[in-house]
Amino acid sequence: MTSQHQILVLNGPNLQLLGTRKPDIYGCRSLADVEDRLRALASELGVAVDCRQSNHEGDLVDWIGSTQGRFSGIIINPGAYTHTSVAIRDAIEAVGLPAVEIHISNVHAREEFRHRSLIAPVCLGQISGMGTHGYELALRGVVAYLEQPAQA
Amino acid sequence: MTSQHQILVLNGPNLQLLGTRKPDIYGCRSLADVEDRLRALASELGVAVDCRQSNHEGDLVDWIGSTQGRFSGIIINPGAYTHTSVAIRDAIEAVGLPAVEIHISNVHAREEFRHRSLIAPVCLGQISGMGTHGYELALRGVVAYLEQPAQA
Amino acid sequence: MTSQHQILVLNGPNLQLLGTRKPDIYGCRSLADVEDRLRALASELGVAVDCRQSNHEGDLVDWIGSTQGRFSGIIINPGAYTHTSVAIRDAIEAVGLPAVEIHISNVHAREEFRHRSLIAPVCLGQISGMGTHGYELALRGVVAYLEQPAQA
Amino acid sequence: MTSQHQILVLNGPNLQLLGTRKPDIYGCRSLADVEDRLRALASELGVAVDCRQSNHEGDLVDWIGSTQGRFSGIIINPGAYTHTSVAIRDAIEAVGLPAVEIHISNVHAREEFRHRSLIAPVCLGQISGMGTHGYELALRGVVAYLEQPAQA
Amino acid sequence: MTSQHQILVLNGPNLQLLGTRKPDIYGCRSLADVEDRLRALASELGVAVDCRQSNHEGDLVDWIGSTQGRFSGIIINPGAYTHTSVAIRDAIEAVGLPAVEIHISNVHAREEFRHRSLIAPVCLGQISGMGTHGYELALRGVVAYLEQPAQA
Amino acid sequence: MTSQHQILVLNGPNLQLLGTRKPDIYGCRSLADVEDRLRALASELGVAVDCRQSNHEGDLVDWIGSTQGRFSGIIINPGAYTHTSVAIRDAIEAVGLPAVEIHISNVHAREEFRHRSLIAPVCLGQISGMGTHGYELALRGVVAYLEQPAQA
Amino acid sequence: MTSQHQILVLNGPNLQLLGTRKPDIYGCRSLADVEDRLRALASELGVAVDCRQSNHEGDLVDWIGSTQGRFSGIIINPGAYTHTSVAIRDAIEAVGLPAVEIHISNVHAREEFRHRSLIAPVCLGQISGMGTHGYELALRGVVAYLEQPAQA
Amino acid sequence: MTSQHQILVLNGPNLQLLGTRKPDIYGCRSLADVEDRLRALASELGVAVDCRQSNHEGDLVDWIGSTQGRFSGIIINPGAYTHTSVAIRDAIEAVGLPAVEIHISNVHAREEFRHRSLIAPVCLGQISGMGTHGYELALRGVVAYLEQPAQA
Amino acid sequence: MTSQHQILVLNGPNLQLLGTRKPDIYGCRSLADVEDRLRALASELGVAVDCRQSNHEGDLVDWIGSTQGRFSGIIINPGAYTHTSVAIRDAIEAVGLPAVEIHISNVHAREEFRHRSLIAPVCLGQISGMGTHGYELALRGVVAYLEQPAQA
Amino acid sequence: MTSQHQILVLNGPNLQLLGTRKPDIYGCRSLADVEDRLRALASELGVAVDCRQSNHEGDLVDWIGSTQGRFSGIIINPGAYTHTSVAIRDAIEAVGLPAVEIHISNVHAREEFRHRSLIAPVCLGQISGMGTHGYELALRGVVAYLEQPAQA
Amino acid sequence: MTSQHQILVLNGPNLQLLGTRKPDIYGCRSLADVEDRLRALASELGVAVDCRQSNHEGDLVDWIGSTQGRFSGIIINPGAYTHTSVAIRDAIEAVGLPAVEIHISNVHAREEFRHRSLIAPVCLGQISGMGTHGYELALRGVVAYLEQPAQA
Amino acid sequence: MTSQHQILVLNGPNLQLLGTRKPDIYGCRSLADVEDRLRALASELGVAVDCRQSNHEGDLVDWIGSTQGRFSGIIINPGAYTHTSVAIRDAIEAVGLPAVEIHISNVHAREEFRHRSLIAPVCLGQISGMGTHGYELALRGVVAYLEQPAQA
Repeated sequence: MTSQHQILVLNGPNLQLLGTRKPDIYGCRSLADVEDRLRALASELGVAVDCRQSNHEGDLVDWIGSTQGRFSGIIINPGAYTHTSVAIRDAIEAVGLPAVEIHISNVHAREEFRHRSLIAPVCLGQISGMGTHGYELALRGVVAYLEQPAQA
Repeated sequence: MTSQHQILVLNGPNLQLLGTRKPDIYGCRSLADVEDRLRALASELGVAVDCRQSNHEGDLVDWIGSTQGRFSGIIINPGAYTHTSVAIRDAIEAVGLPAVEIHISNVHAREEFRHRSLIAPVCLGQISGMGTHGYELALRGVVAYLEQPAQA
Repeated sequence: MTSQHQILVLNGPNLQLLGTRKPDIYGCRSLADVEDRLRALASELGVAVDCRQSNHEGDLVDWIGSTQGRFSGIIINPGAYTHTSVAIRDAIEAVGLPAVEIHISNVHAREEFRHRSLIAPVCLGQISGMGTHGYELALRGVVAYLEQPAQA
Repeated sequence: MTSQHQILVLNGPNLQLLGTRKPDIYGCRSLADVEDRLRALASELGVAVDCRQSNHEGDLVDWIGSTQGRFSGIIINPGAYTHTSVAIRDAIEAVGLPAVEIHISNVHAREEFRHRSLIAPVCLGQISGMGTHGYELALRGVVAYLEQPAQA
Repeated sequence: MTSQHQILVLNGPNLQLLGTRKPDIYGCRSLADVEDRLRALASELGVAVDCRQSNHEGDLVDWIGSTQGRFSGIIINPGAYTHTSVAIRDAIEAVGLPAVEIHISNVHAREEFRHRSLIAPVCLGQISGMGTHGYELALRGVVAYLEQPAQA
Repeated sequence: MTSQHQILVLNGPNLQLLGTRKPDIYGCRSLADVEDRLRALASELGVAVDCRQSNHEGDLVDWIGSTQGRFSGIIINPGAYTHTSVAIRDAIEAVGLPAVEIHISNVHAREEFRHRSLIAPVCLGQISGMGTHGYELALRGVVAYLEQPAQA
Repeated sequence: MTSQHQILVLNGPNLQLLGTRKPDIYGCRSLADVEDRLRALASELGVAVDCRQSNHEGDLVDWIGSTQGRFSGIIINPGAYTHTSVAIRDAIEAVGLPAVEIHISNVHAREEFRHRSLIAPVCLGQISGMGTHGYELALRGVVAYLEQPAQA
Repeated sequence: MTSQHQILVLNGPNLQLLGTRKPDIYGCRSLADVEDRLRALASELGVAVDCRQSNHEGDLVDWIGSTQGRFSGIIINPGAYTHTSVAIRDAIEAVGLPAVEIHISNVHAREEFRHRSLIAPVCLGQISGMGTHGYELALRGVVAYLEQPAQA
Repeated sequence: MTSQHQILVLNGPNLQLLGTRKPDIYGCRSLADVEDRLRALASELGVAVDCRQSNHEGDLVDWIGSTQGRFSGIIINPGAYTHTSVAIRDAIEAVGLPAVEIHISNVHAREEFRHRSLIAPVCLGQISGMGTHGYELALRGVVAYLEQPAQA
Repeated sequence: MTSQHQILVLNGPNLQLLGTRKPDIYGCRSLADVEDRLRALASELGVAVDCRQSNHEGDLVDWIGSTQGRFSGIIINPGAYTHTSVAIRDAIEAVGLPAVEIHISNVHAREEFRHRSLIAPVCLGQISGMGTHGYELALRGVVAYLEQPAQA
Repeated sequence: MTSQHQILVLNGPNLQLLGTRKPDIYGCRSLADVEDRLRALASELGVAVDCRQSNHEGDLVDWIGSTQGRFSGIIINPGAYTHTSVAIRDAIEAVGLPAVEIHISNVHAREEFRHRSLIAPVCLGQISGMGTHGYELALRGVVAYLEQPAQA
Repeated sequence: MTSQHQILVLNGPNLQLLGTRKPDIYGCRSLADVEDRLRALASELGVAVDCRQSNHEGDLVDWIGSTQGRFSGIIINPGAYTHTSVAIRDAIEAVGLPAVEIHISNVHAREEFRHRSLIAPVCLGQISGMGTHGYELALRGVVAYLEQPAQA
C-alpha cells in the first residue's frame, strides 16, 4: 500500500501567474486551485503531495537536492528552465527519484527552442499539452509507477 | 454527457510485438492486454474505444482520414512513424480531431532522432515514458478535454 | 502528333480529402472534380490521363514502376511524401519518364520542412501554389515537353 | 471580365542572354521571342503584359514598388536574385499583388544554394523546370487566379 | 497626459560593477549615476522610473511578474541573461507591458553567442551600442510609445 | 552443423526493376536471377534462403516481425528505405536476429543523403558497392557468423 | 560645440513606400514626413542632416564612400540589405564614421533571417522596433556620441 | 612570498551532494572533506582559501563581483552552469582575476552539451577528470601562476 | 601569339577607395595606380586590359554579359560581392570566358563569411593575399592559360 | 584467368594490436593469423596478396602511390584514418585501382564521427561489421570484380 | 608504494620548438628544460618518466601501442593532433592505460576548432592553460590516480 | 637586393605522381619538371629555391620547423593535408615566415570539403587553379613581398 508516499510537486518560473494570464491557453484556474485539486486526487490515491513554486532556478535545485529520504517521487513543471537548466537536470539525476516533467501547453507545437527539454531525458517521462489536468495525469502516472514499476 | 464519444486508438509499426519483446522496457503486457484494459477504463469513463494496429503508414493515414463524423478523438502511438511521417501529421491536421500522441518509453531519453516528433505539433499533446499505463492517461486526457476543453 | 500519349496522374496521401477540408486553402473542388477537369483538358490537348490516388507510399512506387511502355509522362502530387520519400524519387528516376511535381498550396510559404522536395530533383520541374488549377498547368507543361522537349 | 488586367513581367540578371547561351538548357528562343509569345497568349486570354529586364536588383525593386494602381499581378523570373534578394521579397510583399515566380530550368535539380528561394514565400506560387514555356503557364495561372482566386 | 506613468528599469548581472570596470568600453559612470540621470530625464518627460539591479535571474522574473497594475512599461538591460533566459522572456510576454531591451555595448559586434537575444522578440524593440546614453533613448522611446503607440 | 538455418532475404523498393534498368550500374541480372544464384550458394553452404521483395515499407516490417522462431538471420537491401525508415530499424532491433544490410551500388559514393543508413546501426554490418555479388558475400558473412559469432 | 556636424541619413530598399503601406506596422507617416521631423530635431540639436533613399545597394555604397570630409556620422536604415549586403558593411567600415543602424520594426521579432545584421557589427550600435521615432533616437545617439564619445 | 594571497574557491549547483551520491564517479569524500584538504594544502603553500557553495547562479555572480581587492585568484567548479551561464563568464572577465575552472569528472567524455564551457575561455585554464584531487592541482596551478605568471 | 587578347579587369564595391584607406592592409597605391601598372605589364606581355570599377552589382553583371566576341578573359576582384552575388557567378558561367578571381587581402584569414566565394567555383582559379601585386599575378596567369591551357 | 592478379592488402593504425585487445569485439585472431587465412583463400582463388601494416598515414599513401603496374586491386582497412585522411583518398583515386574498404567492427553502429568515411567514395565499395572474416569477403569481392566488372 | 611506475610522456607536433617561439605565450623554457623539471618531480614522487617528442602522428601511435606491460600511465600533449587524430585516440583506448591530456595554452580560449579534443574522451582527464607547469600537475594527477583510483 | 633569399618549396601527399596521372587536370609535367622551371625562374629573380616532397605530414612539419635562420619564405602545396592538418598550420605560424599556399587545381570548384583550408589563414595568401604555372606565380609573389612587404 502506498499511503506513505510523499510526492514533491514543483512549479518553475512564471507559474505563479497561472489563471490570471492568457486563460484561453492556460485555463482560468490559479496555481492554488490546481494544487488543491492535486491534493484531493492525492488523497484519493492514498499519497501526499508537497507543492512549491519559485522563479529561482537555485530554489528548484535546492529543493530537489533535499528530497533524500523524504520523498518518493517528483512532479515538475520547470517552465522556461525546461530548455536552459542543466542544473535542474543534474539535480534530478543525482537524487535518482522517479520524476515526471509536465507542461500545461503543448511545447512541441510552440517555438523551436521549446521542443528540446534538457530535463526530460533524466525523468521517467513527459506529459505536455493536456492543460492543468496534466498535473493529475502526472500524479496518476507516478503513483502507478511506484506501485508497479515494471508495468509503467 | 459523454457516453456517445468514440475514440480511435491507433498503434503503429512493431507494436504488434508488445509484451513478447524487451519486457524490461515495454512491460510484459501484450497489445491485446493493453487494449482490454483501455476498453475497461473507457467503459468506466462512459466512452468507447476502437483499437487498431498496422505496420503500414498508409493504413494509419487511411484510418485517420475516415474518422469524420464517426469519432470524437484520437489516441495514437505512431511508433517509428513519429519521426518520419509527414503523411500522418497531415492526416491528423486535416481531420481536425483532438489527438494525443503516446509513447510507452521515454523518447526524450533515447537516440537524438527520436526527440523530434513530426506529429506532436498537430496534436493536443504528448505523453511519453509512462509505460503502457500511458494509454490510460491519454484516454483520461482526451475525455477530460472533450468534457471541458477550456480547462484541459 | 501526340494523340497516343498516356499520362499517369498520381495523388498521394490525404488528397482523397480534397474539397471537403479547408476549402479556403485547397478550394472546394473534390479530387474527382479535379480529375474530371483534367480529363477534359487532356482530351482537348489530344492526350489521355489515368488518375490514381493512394495513401500508401508503396502503391505510388508500384504504379510508377509499372509505367514502362504504357505511359509517356507522369504528373504527381506526392503530398506529404514529397519531403520524406526517397523510394518515390528512385522510382521516377528508374523509369526515366518526364515527370512534373505539383502542389496545390505554395509549399515554399509553409513550414521549413516542406521547402525541401526529395522528388523534384528527378522531375522535369515543379509547380506549386497555383491551386487545383496547377494540375492543368502541369498537363499543359508535360504535353508541351513531349511535343518539343528542346523548347520546354 | 479580365480585359483590363495589366500583368508586369520581370526578368532578372543574365536573362538578356537567353537564346544565345546554353541552348540545350535554356532553349534557343531569345528573351524578345519569349516575350512576343507571352504577349500573344496575353491577348488570347484578354489581358496585357508589360515586359522588362534588368541586371540591377534595384531596378526590379523600383519597378515592383511602382505597380500600385497600374498592375493586377506580377510574373517574375528573379534569376540569381531568387536566392539572395530580401529586397525583392520585401517589395512584392509590400505591394501585395499576386505574383508568380518562374524559373526556366529546374532549380531544385541544381546546386544546393539554388533550392532555397527567398522570394517564393511571398508569391502565389512557383513554376520551375518547364522551360520558356513556363512563362505561359505562369500567365495562365495568374489570370486564372485573378478570375477566381478561391479555386486557384 | 503621461505624468502618471511608472516605468520599471531593470539591470541584470554584473551591472552593479558599472563605472569601475573597463571604463573605455562602458564609460566611467556608475550605475547610480546612470540611474540619477534617468530619473532626471523621467522628471523632464513627466514620468517616473523605479530602478533595480540583481545578479539573480529569479529576482528579475519576480519583479517583472509583479508589475501588474503598477507599471506602464519596462526598460531592461538583461546583461548576460539576454542570451540564456527563457524565463525572463516568458515573464515579459506574460505581463504584456511594452518593454525595451537595452545594451550599453554593441552586442552585435561581440562574440557570436551575444548576437542572439531570447528576450528582444517579446519586446517593443532593442537599443544597443549607444553607451549608457542608451537608457535615456530607451526611456524616450517608451514614453513616445505610451503617448502614441501607432506612431512608434 | 548449420543445415537447419533459414535466412530471410529481403529486397525493398524498386528492386523488382533489377536488370531491366541502368544495367551499367546494377548489372543485367534480374532479381530472380540474383535470387537463384543466392539459393545455389545457400545450398552449397548448407543453409536455406527465403527471398521476398516489396515496395511497401509496411510489408518489410511485417515480414521482419514474423521471423521469430522461423529464421536464423536476415539479409536486407532496404533500397530507398535505408535512409528514411525508422520502422524497419526498430523491427530488426526488436527481433534481435543477426542482419546484414546490402547495397548493390556504393551508397557512400552517391548523394549526401544516401551516406546515412538508419538501419545499419542495428545490423551486424553493411556491404555496399560489390554489385549483385554482394548478396553472396552477405550470405557467406551471415553463415560464418552463425557458425562462429566470436570470430566474425 | 557641434553646429558644424553633418549627418548622412540613408534609407534603403522599399522605404520610399513608407506611410502608404501597412500603416499598422510602419505608422502612417511618409518618408518625407519622417525626414522633416528629423530635420527639425537636427536643428534643435544644432546639427544638420542630409536625407537620401535608394533601392540600389550600389547607390548606398556610393554615398557612404563619398562621405569623407563632408560628414561626421551616418544614420542608416538598410532595409532588406541589412541581412545581405557585405558591400554596405565594407563601405561603412572603410570610411570609419560612427554609424547607427535603425529599423522601424523589431527585426528580432520577425523571420529568423532578419535576426542577423551584416552591418550592425561595424556600426556604433543598432536601434530597432521604436517605430519611425527610432530615427530621432538614432540622431540623439549620434550627436551624444560626437559630443562625448567616451560616455556614449 | 605569497602568504598574503587569498584564493576564492567556488562550487556550483549540486556539489553540496558530493560524497553521498555516485561515489564510484565522484569519490566518497564530502565537499567539506575536499575543502578541508584544500585548506591544508593552501596552508602548506602559504596561501589561504575561502570556500563557498551555492545552487544559485546569482550567488556565484555576486561573490565573484565582490572579489575586488580581497582575492588574488579564483578556483571555480561551476557544475552545470559551466555550459549555460554567460553571467558567470562575464563576472570573471569583469573582475579580471586569474581563475581556474575545475571539474571532478571528465566533462569531455560525457554528453555532447557538456563539452562546451562558456566559462573556460575567460579563465587561465581548465582541469577536468582528475577527481576531487583536481581542486588541489588547481590550487597548485593558481599559486604557481601568481608566483611566476610568465612561466605558467 | 597573344597580341590580340583583350582582358576585362573588373573591380567591385569600395575598391574606388583603394590607397586612401587602411594603407597598412591595402597598400598606398590608388586604384588608378594599380591599373596603370597592370596596363604596363599587359603591354609587356603583348595583351591589352580594359579596367572598370563599380559599386553596383548590376554594372558588373552588365559588363560581363557584354564580353562576347570582345574579350578573351576576365580578371575580377568582386570585393564584397564575392560572398553574396550569385548573379555575377551566373554571368561568368554564362559567357564561358576564363576568369581569375583576385583579392588584395587574404580572405581566408578574415571573418568566416569571407572564406566562401560564390564566384571562384566558376573561375579558372583564385589569387588572394598577395596585395595589389596580385592583379599582376592574375594577368600573368590568364595570359599563360590563353597561350597554353593544358599546362596552366 | 586471374592467376596473375596481385592484391595489395593494407592495414592502418592500431591494427598491429589485433587479437591481443578487446577480443570480444575484434576476435582473438592476430593480424598475422588473419593475413595467413587471407593468403590461403587467395591461393584458392588463384590470386596473390601482399599484406602490410603501418601506423603512419604517409606509409599508406606511399604504398598506394607505388602500386602502378604491380597490383590489380587494393583491400584497405584504414582504421582511424578512414575518417580523417583525404591523403589516402586522393592516393586511391590517383592510382585508379579497384579498392575495397573493410572494417572489422560495424562503424555505422559506433560514434557519429565514425559514420563518415572519406575513403569509401573512391572505392568500389565498403564492407563493415563482418569481423575479421570481412577481409575474406573483400578478397572474394575484388576477385569477382576483376573477373567480371560488369556483374559486380 | 609506486616506485615501480613508469609514465610515458609524449609531446606531439611543433613542441620541439618550445621556448624559442612566442615566449609570452609558451614561456621561455625549452622542451628539454620542461622534461628535466618533470624528471625531478617524478623522482620526488617515486616514479619514473620516459619523455619523447615527434611531429609524426604515426610515431605517437607506435609508442602508445608499445606501452603494454612497460608503462603504468601516459601524459600526452598531442599538440595539433588533439583536434584531428582519431588514430591517437584509438591507440590510447586500445592500450587502456590511464592517460592525461595536457595543453600549455588554454585551448578553450583559442580558435573554435581547438575547443574539441578527439583524444580527451578516452583519457582520465585534461589539463589546459596552466603553462608548462601543467605537465607537473598532470604527473601529480596520474600518480594520485595510480595510488588511489577511487578518489581521483 | 634579394640574391640571398632562400625559399623552401614543399609539396605534400600524392604530388610525387604529378604528370603521370590525370594529365588533363594536372598537366603532363612531372614534379621534377615543375621544380626545374621554378629553379630557372628563381635564378632569374635572384633567389634560390629548395624543393622537397613527402607523403608524411610529419616530414612537412619537421621541415617547416627547421627553417629558422635558413629560409626567407615558404611555398607550399599541402595537397590533401590542406584540409586536415592543424599541425602544418601550427608549424607555419610558429616559424613566422611569409608562406604562400598553392594548389594546381581550383579547390574552390571541387568537393565541399576542399573549400576550407586550415593552412591558408596563417599564410600570406593562396593561389589556386592556375595549373603548375601557379608555383611560378607564388614565387613571384613571395619575392615581391620580401622586397616590398607594404605593397604586396
